[in-house]
Amino acid sequence: MLPGRRETALDRLAVEEPLEIRVHGGPLAVVMRTPGRDRDLVAGFLAAEGVLRDAEDLAGVEPCLDPETGGPAANVWNAVLAPGVPFDPRERRFAPVGSACGLCGARTLDALIRELPPLPAPPATLALADLTAAFEALHQRQALFAATAGSHGAALWTPAAGLLDVAEDVGRHNAVDKLLGSRLLAGGYPVAPEEADPPLLLVSGRISFELTQKAALAGVPLLAGVGMPTSLAVEAAQRCGQALLGWVRDGGASVYAGATRLLAP
Amino acid sequence: MLPGRRETALDRLAVEEPLEIRVHGGPLAVVMRTPGRDRDLVAGFLAAEGVLRDAEDLAGVEPCLDPETGGPAANVWNAVLAPGVPFDPRERRFAPVGSACGLCGARTLDALIRELPPLPAPPATLALADLTAAFEALHQRQALFAATAGSHGAALWTPAAGLLDVAEDVGRHNAVDKLLGSRLLAGGYPVAPEEADPPLLLVSGRISFELTQKAALAGVPLLAGVGMPTSLAVEAAQRCGQALLGWVRDGGASVYAGATRLLAP
Repeated sequence: MLPGRRETALDRLAVEEPLEIRVHGGPLAVVMRTPGRDRDLVAGFLAAEGVLRDAEDLAGVEPCLDPETGGPAANVWNAVLAPGVPFDPRERRFAPVGSACGLCGARTLDALIRELPPLPAPPATLALADLTAAFEALHQRQALFAATAGSHGAALWTPAAGLLDVAEDVGRHNAVDKLLGSRLLAGGYPVAPEEADPPLLLVSGRISFELTQKAALAGVPLLAGVGMPTSLAVEAAQRCGQALLGWVRDGGASVYAGATRLLAP
Repeated sequence: MLPGRRETALDRLAVEEPLEIRVHGGPLAVVMRTPGRDRDLVAGFLAAEGVLRDAEDLAGVEPCLDPETGGPAANVWNAVLAPGVPFDPRERRFAPVGSACGLCGARTLDALIRELPPLPAPPATLALADLTAAFEALHQRQALFAATAGSHGAALWTPAAGLLDVAEDVGRHNAVDKLLGSRLLAGGYPVAPEEADPPLLLVSGRISFELTQKAALAGVPLLAGVGMPTSLAVEAAQRCGQALLGWVRDGGASVYAGATRLLAP
């Protein structure tokens, strides 16, 4: 041990490895992620990119074959779209566009919001004690974080049913893609607008525009985080009717968008 | 105010807006960033992508003209490379590649390390008290974080000269790009291998592979973070001879790579 090295109970590092995502055999993206639930991740990534609208759009998603071993490659996955599903690799959501301003202006935020599915109503009221307990339950299930202090966690949760699913990853966006991709593969994507107890999304960190966008595309009507939202996350949530809660800690929370009332315990 | 809303001293949200980066007028990428130091950000982004090796490669970087106002567009910048600088927009560092495994295997990490400039030697010893004081100074200069609790900070620092530069952004990688891009524009990129007191990079959060890569490409021989590094960050730092320190907090620090000895106060 080196002098001055801090003693720590942490004995593991969070694993980060690249995953190459292909569509019809053509490379689309490389994401840096924690291995595990890769099928969910690929499905969720493609949904967030607008390639998949629902489970019907996906004919299959499998690891590629490793040319050396003949077995499945650990870090390369290929998705096959259903016949007739439009796909242009140049039209990725976050890819640069040829127009004057990309995502920059209100016009383009308008365009983005027009393509969102109708959201179920967020809960009209939410008990602060329930929300706080949900985040505590998420924290308890962040096994990777407990071992490494180097990962994010996300959960789907409803006030009536509790935690539905938890995912961890070195990337916050990947953890969310794993949750939403799993729903897509199971046929529950996007959430039906008439859903009475729709899944809500909880994240362990800050909330960027990208997370509000992923949640809104999935039909999730409420997003809550331990950290603060950014300006654009709040604007996007306000404009698409999503409830947005931040700074959920120490028994409190702040409401940044949506009509949800927090009922103190 | 809604019932249950937490009272907070935070009166501002960290601003997040898209920036479109063009090269020779052609769109290359859209990054979500906090406006400010955009010229530095564009230069740093292009250096990290391997488009720019040093200041000589850059003929100019300017905002595009807004077609409506005729003035500079706030969120679209164009870079012009010096004559003869090779550029292929399909060869972005993190873009997918056609080979079996992208960045996945040791072979590709080898290729990445081969293209790094020689690094100056990291400090043979480092006083823990100096490192702790540097992070405290960084924290004191994170004005955006103090107001929003929603941003990352990064700094260039040397034990002899103290803090050289501090940048903040909603994205950790952007804060680092702003610092390194500023050095590139000033002609100090990459750091000369014979530099006796080379700049070291401090970051307020966790350390991913991408950050070790940005620092190594810039010739920065030591990277330290308040948070934990990922597995791939440690592997990359070990293989390219970079010192990597994590979990710098509570007066302690952990050494993950490199020969730097931390001398307790």
